[in-house]
Amino acid sequence: MNRRDLALGKLRGLGNSIIDDVENNMVPSIKVPSRGTSNIVYDEAKRYYVLGDRYGKRSLGNVKQIKKVAQMVSMGNFCKGLVNTEKTATIREMYYVSEGWDVDFSNQDESNLIVEDLEVTMGISREDLGLMPEEDGASVYGDLTLKDDDVEINAIKSGKSGYSISPTIDEIEFLDHGVERVIAVETMGMFHRMVQEKAYKKFNCLIVGLKGQAARATRRFIKRTHDELGLPVYICNDGDPWGFHIAMVIMSGSAKLAHVNHELATPDAKFLGVTASDIINYDLPTDNLKDIDVLRLKELSKDPRYRDEFWQNEIKKMLKIGKKAEQQSFSKYGLEYVVEKYLPEKLDAM
Amino acid sequence: MNRRDLALGKLRGLGNSIIDDVENNMVPSIKVPSRGTSNIVYDEAKRYYVLGDRYGKRSLGNVKQIKKVAQMVSMGNFCKGLVNTEKTATIREMYYVSEGWDVDFSNQDESNLIVEDLEVTMGISREDLGLMPEEDGASVYGDLTLKDDDVEINAIKSGKSGYSISPTIDEIEFLDHGVERVIAVETMGMFHRMVQEKAYKKFNCLIVGLKGQAARATRRFIKRTHDELGLPVYICNDGDPWGFHIAMVIMSGSAKLAHVNHELATPDAKFLGVTASDIINYDLPTDNLKDIDVLRLKELSKDPRYRDEFWQNEIKKMLKIGKKAEQQSFSKYGLEYVVEKYLPEKLDAM
Repeated sequence: MNRRDLALGKLRGLGNSIIDDVENNMVPSIKVPSRGTSNIVYDEAKRYYVLGDRYGKRSLGNVKQIKKVAQMVSMGNFCKGLVNTEKTATIREMYYVSEGWDVDFSNQDESNLIVEDLEVTMGISREDLGLMPEEDGASVYGDLTLKDDDVEINAIKSGKSGYSISPTIDEIEFLDHGVERVIAVETMGMFHRMVQEKAYKKFNCLIVGLKGQAARATRRFIKRTHDELGLPVYICNDGDPWGFHIAMVIMSGSAKLAHVNHELATPDAKFLGVTASDIINYDLPTDNLKDIDVLRLKELSKDPRYRDEFWQNEIKKMLKIGKKAEQQSFSKYGLEYVVEKYLPEKLDAM
Repeated sequence: MNRRDLALGKLRGLGNSIIDDVENNMVPSIKVPSRGTSNIVYDEAKRYYVLGDRYGKRSLGNVKQIKKVAQMVSMGNFCKGLVNTEKTATIREMYYVSEGWDVDFSNQDESNLIVEDLEVTMGISREDLGLMPEEDGASVYGDLTLKDDDVEINAIKSGKSGYSISPTIDEIEFLDHGVERVIAVETMGMFHRMVQEKAYKKFNCLIVGLKGQAARATRRFIKRTHDELGLPVYICNDGDPWGFHIAMVIMSGSAKLAHVNHELATPDAKFLGVTASDIINYDLPTDNLKDIDVLRLKELSKDPRYRDEFWQNEIKKMLKIGKKAEQQSFSKYGLEYVVEKYLPEKLDAM
């Protein structure tokens, strides 16, 4: 069954369960899995956050819950229209559309929460319901051919800035590829460096330019290259707590999205660097850690996703040297260095 | 002469003038046009900011200026290498590269200033010197075929997120197109709406997704579509002072970049909306103006770029109603409305 039919089936299921309640003379209600922190669990086997078994009930018999139930049903109905017409809407547009309903939202935070309620209740992602984020996905360069509607795209023939992952990534089909791995980098500066130094040939890889924290579409794309194409994934970010965490969210998902991590997380992805050890071994230009960096590193050290020895050591080491370094700081040794020396050495060590 | 040869010629000129000074037993110096506010002039005929005639002299005979002269020459030398090898570097990489010089920079603000000194002294843009910003350009969708090295790209066959304008936009050749106009929109949400509603067919246009304040590469791209292809350009942004100004910078450039506005500004581009009048006429969902919005609107009303009647009226009207509205707020009337009703009415009125 394709994702669209699955989404339609789930939406119909939600509607039918309410109709059944009415026909059986019961007060209609919806079971909504809890997204409270106590119900978000790090799954050691899966290596990402998942939701536990707790759930709440939204009932038309509870005056406080009537509006929320009506909003969920109205939004479900709007999404059914989107899926049927093969359209999408941004969650911002969706908020404005709701102005025409009798149960509109007072602000977008409120409508976003109902989007998450729908996701978690039906066990599918909002993208499958036609609801898209504003943000663009990453840029991809390398020998991958994909099909978007009736258009075939090769990510080595899309220009220097590569192919942009669109929010509708699940409607895209991977047709063919000639690569052995995926290397994701945090900044577009490094992306362009990799393209110019022909890293896609040298490492026979797809280059993914994350543009900071990876968008959902980017995480989904990376997961699909790993799961569907069997490609190993490597991530190379700035050597600071933020770079670490951009990588970790790609690998082990976020707590906030525990209900969709099974579609987004790539636990087998590997962090190439920049590590605290790299900062020392390559004598990189550094900045001093700021208070907020130190605070964040201490938080990460207690996070279950950072439990293994590698991360614990690197966090400790970074706190000890009190320094951080950017990806681009390798240019101290010349622009080519990062592709000619650093990446080969790190890939070899893996 | 192509841009690369021009850049090389200018770099050689800079070097030769210093050698000439030495050979003539004069203290070497460089004439650097002033970028101080008093030398930035709004040119009424050109309809953008330009630099005036004032300039300063950087001389090796002045102890305070020796380091700056050496930095300019070192950077010029590095850029010569970039241009010769057909490479580029981000201004961040350039900053790290300078760590290997005897006249390194204490921070990137300092190296960025020298980049601007080079631009203004030689009268060419930093992109021609191989120095690129980090930021990506806009997304483009529609029937335009361009050539990037030996790759031909059609912006209607690049996927739903379109073709990404790369920082090296001046090395790209426009081969062919089948459109009558360019419509630029502020957000990627609106870009995707335009693609889905087939605005590129309906208005026979290129759709440009600006992603907020337009990158230099985006402004250059828009200028080139106007000047080289003879296409009229329309801009549709959020109805607030920030949306106004994103449009204005595309049209009349920024004061800070007065020395390169002749390469970036498109004074004939038209602002389609969202105007204060649109907010009233289309009864759009609004937010109240914040203090900072009011402050900004008052600033704009005194800015020479906003001198004409249209802008003065719209600014006054927005201050009077005390409201602003986003592009996406048209979805109150359904997702199609902005393409089916609003844009045709606005284009007709032009």
